Amino acid sequence: MAKSLPVSPLAPKDGFPDLPVIKGVRFATVEAGVRYKNRTDVMLAELAPGTVMTGTFTRSKTRSAAVLDCQDKIHETSDAGAAILVNSGNANAFTGAEGRTAVHAICEGVSEALGIPENRVFTSSTGVIGEPLPHDRITSAVGTLRAKLSETGIAEAARAIMTTDTFPKGSARQVAIDGATVSVAGIAKGSGMIAPDMATMLVYIFTDAKIAREELQPLVGAICNQTFNCITVDSDTSTSDTLLVAATGATGIDVTGNGDFEKALTEVMDDLAKQVVRDGEGATKFVSVYVTGSATEEDAKRVAFAIANSPLVKTAVAGEDPNWGRVVMAVGKSGAEADRDKLSIWFGQHQVALNGKIAPDYSEADAAKYMKGQEVDIRVDLGLGSFGTVVYTCDLTAQYIAINADYRS
Amino acid sequence: MAKSLPVSPLAPKDGFPDLPVIKGVRFATVEAGVRYKNRTDVMLAELAPGTVMTGTFTRSKTRSAAVLDCQDKIHETSDAGAAILVNSGNANAFTGAEGRTAVHAICEGVSEALGIPENRVFTSSTGVIGEPLPHDRITSAVGTLRAKLSETGIAEAARAIMTTDTFPKGSARQVAIDGATVSVAGIAKGSGMIAPDMATMLVYIFTDAKIAREELQPLVGAICNQTFNCITVDSDTSTSDTLLVAATGATGIDVTGNGDFEKALTEVMDDLAKQVVRDGEGATKFVSVYVTGSATEEDAKRVAFAIANSPLVKTAVAGEDPNWGRVVMAVGKSGAEADRDKLSIWFGQHQVALNGKIAPDYSEADAAKYMKGQEVDIRVDLGLGSFGTVVYTCDLTAQYIAINADYRS
Repeated sequence: MAKSLPVSPLAPKDGFPDLPVIKGVRFATVEAGVRYKNRTDVMLAELAPGTVMTGTFTRSKTRSAAVLDCQDKIHETSDAGAAILVNSGNANAFTGAEGRTAVHAICEGVSEALGIPENRVFTSSTGVIGEPLPHDRITSAVGTLRAKLSETGIAEAARAIMTTDTFPKGSARQVAIDGATVSVAGIAKGSGMIAPDMATMLVYIFTDAKIAREELQPLVGAICNQTFNCITVDSDTSTSDTLLVAATGATGIDVTGNGDFEKALTEVMDDLAKQVVRDGEGATKFVSVYVTGSATEEDAKRVAFAIANSPLVKTAVAGEDPNWGRVVMAVGKSGAEADRDKLSIWFGQHQVALNGKIAPDYSEADAAKYMKGQEVDIRVDLGLGSFGTVVYTCDLTAQYIAINADYRS
Repeated sequence: MAKSLPVSPLAPKDGFPDLPVIKGVRFATVEAGVRYKNRTDVMLAELAPGTVMTGTFTRSKTRSAAVLDCQDKIHETSDAGAAILVNSGNANAFTGAEGRTAVHAICEGVSEALGIPENRVFTSSTGVIGEPLPHDRITSAVGTLRAKLSETGIAEAARAIMTTDTFPKGSARQVAIDGATVSVAGIAKGSGMIAPDMATMLVYIFTDAKIAREELQPLVGAICNQTFNCITVDSDTSTSDTLLVAATGATGIDVTGNGDFEKALTEVMDDLAKQVVRDGEGATKFVSVYVTGSATEEDAKRVAFAIANSPLVKTAVAGEDPNWGRVVMAVGKSGAEADRDKLSIWFGQHQVALNGKIAPDYSEADAAKYMKGQEVDIRVDLGLGSFGTVVYTCDLTAQYIAINADYRS
């Protein structure tokens, strides 16, 4: 089970970062016993009146009741407070009408406890699919959660939302704007069923900056495309993927169109996205796949994901083998425009292929040595045009199999 | 290395079948030492004058020199004899101009030795990508191959083309037509980089029936769509995938439009396709994914392949876990039209989900017992329309990782 897994060797060396207080947000966690024992499994974030809520969600056709409920509510604007409640252990996905009832009961409970409208309560559930969510265990804990709300509870919140994660994920940036400090802090959980084509997994980001919903939502969408939509662990897409970004406005600092704020938000999202990959199930290598010289932007993504999702490329990386033939194979199967005789490939600084053949100076021994590192860059130049992209992934190891062959047992 | 792998537990219980002699075809094999030691690695099939050659090939954009050469030649008709030469150990893919030179040298050597035009010599190479093919080792063995040609050499040919295969693959059918017997016999090799969207891996099928090229080619294409294009091991597509079907016409029996012949050819192709899956790298379970009730035929394929290629579904099968939540996830990510509340799922005869919820009579214990079998059927009914399909795959095990992390070492 999740708890006994060793911490990923790719986890940040400095542990969980020291996240700043975000004015207007308080956190609480509790051991509700939804499924796990002896650990927190529900987190509540209370957001001050005036908070702007934005988000992006999985495009899965079988998305969970909580995701459907969030999608209904996210476009509404309100000056009331808001709340986010997340449970781990049970995804409340594929639970039919019971699933909707459970979400409604939780939202109602939080609404009453915090004195905010029900349409301002956003929930997520993560864990096993297809089993009814024992929502009474959550609603009966709401009073305790309210009593424990604290401005400094974000690190505990990051722990409560973990499933097969081996380390909690947090990131923050602070920027000085108009002589004041604006903070952005976020938490995330992975770590299987990670693929793009939507905000991947569960991510909650908070800022005390002031920004209108109409400004923040497209910004979040655009940054999501460059961050969470550029990672993949196993090409599987969750039914519950949710990214919520809440701007409390508590500093009174308006960041509309502010480049420093955009940079801070981008860095937090990029950091969290990469942490999710670093905790990819069974991962021992962090892999950056760069594609350049493609004829279109879409082709660059196709090639990058074909490489990043290829089981044969990922097992070669696990085996520390500079097996560039498998990279060629992945380019070929991607469906993107490619010309074998214009293709060049690098592992790190080691050029292995040039114009469709092995590079004249290529040293297998040097490349093999490079593959022993924890960070592996694979770069492909298609030699056809001027588009490019980067996608992050991890290797595929026997530990991935072990985790996923046993997860429900 | 390939040779030391234990035979797949899914291998046919009766071993390699007793294949009939196909009139007009002779086989020979040799230890040419292309890469492997102490085993045969080149096979030659000589085809009588008048043989009709048809085939389908990988759609990979980085296909090998041999595939490109076959594609150039396959559409020509000729009354001359023909030949197929296959080597294992080196794929001669991504080898630039040298690759073309190697194919030309081999074709020339065979052409001279057998006295047939060079454009009637078809070659395949399978094995490591990106390393120059030492074609002189093959051309210098052509004389030996010619001397060894025998009508009964097909079983040896099946062994010579193996790479990571753990058992040789053969299949045959015989049908009585007009008081005479027509035979169809084929051999194939897998077993990684197996995905559809083309005749997958290397397959050579021979018949002594008489049929025109214009009749046989579309028939082979149509059967390929129902057989080799319905299997996947790891979603990776080879640069070398080749299916050749040769009709020698040596019986003089015209099978144009003959249903019995079509059935025999279909059965041989179906059998070989399934044997490839049965030898999927690390496979311990043979999985049939049935999709019914989809809105379009394309959607049925999308859903079936999303399930069959999902690492999370495949690891659950390896773990003997009836984890239908992952099947739901795969349906959701497939991109096909789906309505969560109309979805039904079965493992074998065990209905686990009905109309988007757990089925009332579902017994986890019974389903878990079913998953312990070597043959696992997963069926999904989308409840939307009348289209369906079936796709064959295998589970994903730690052995797959072990094989592929070490293959080149």
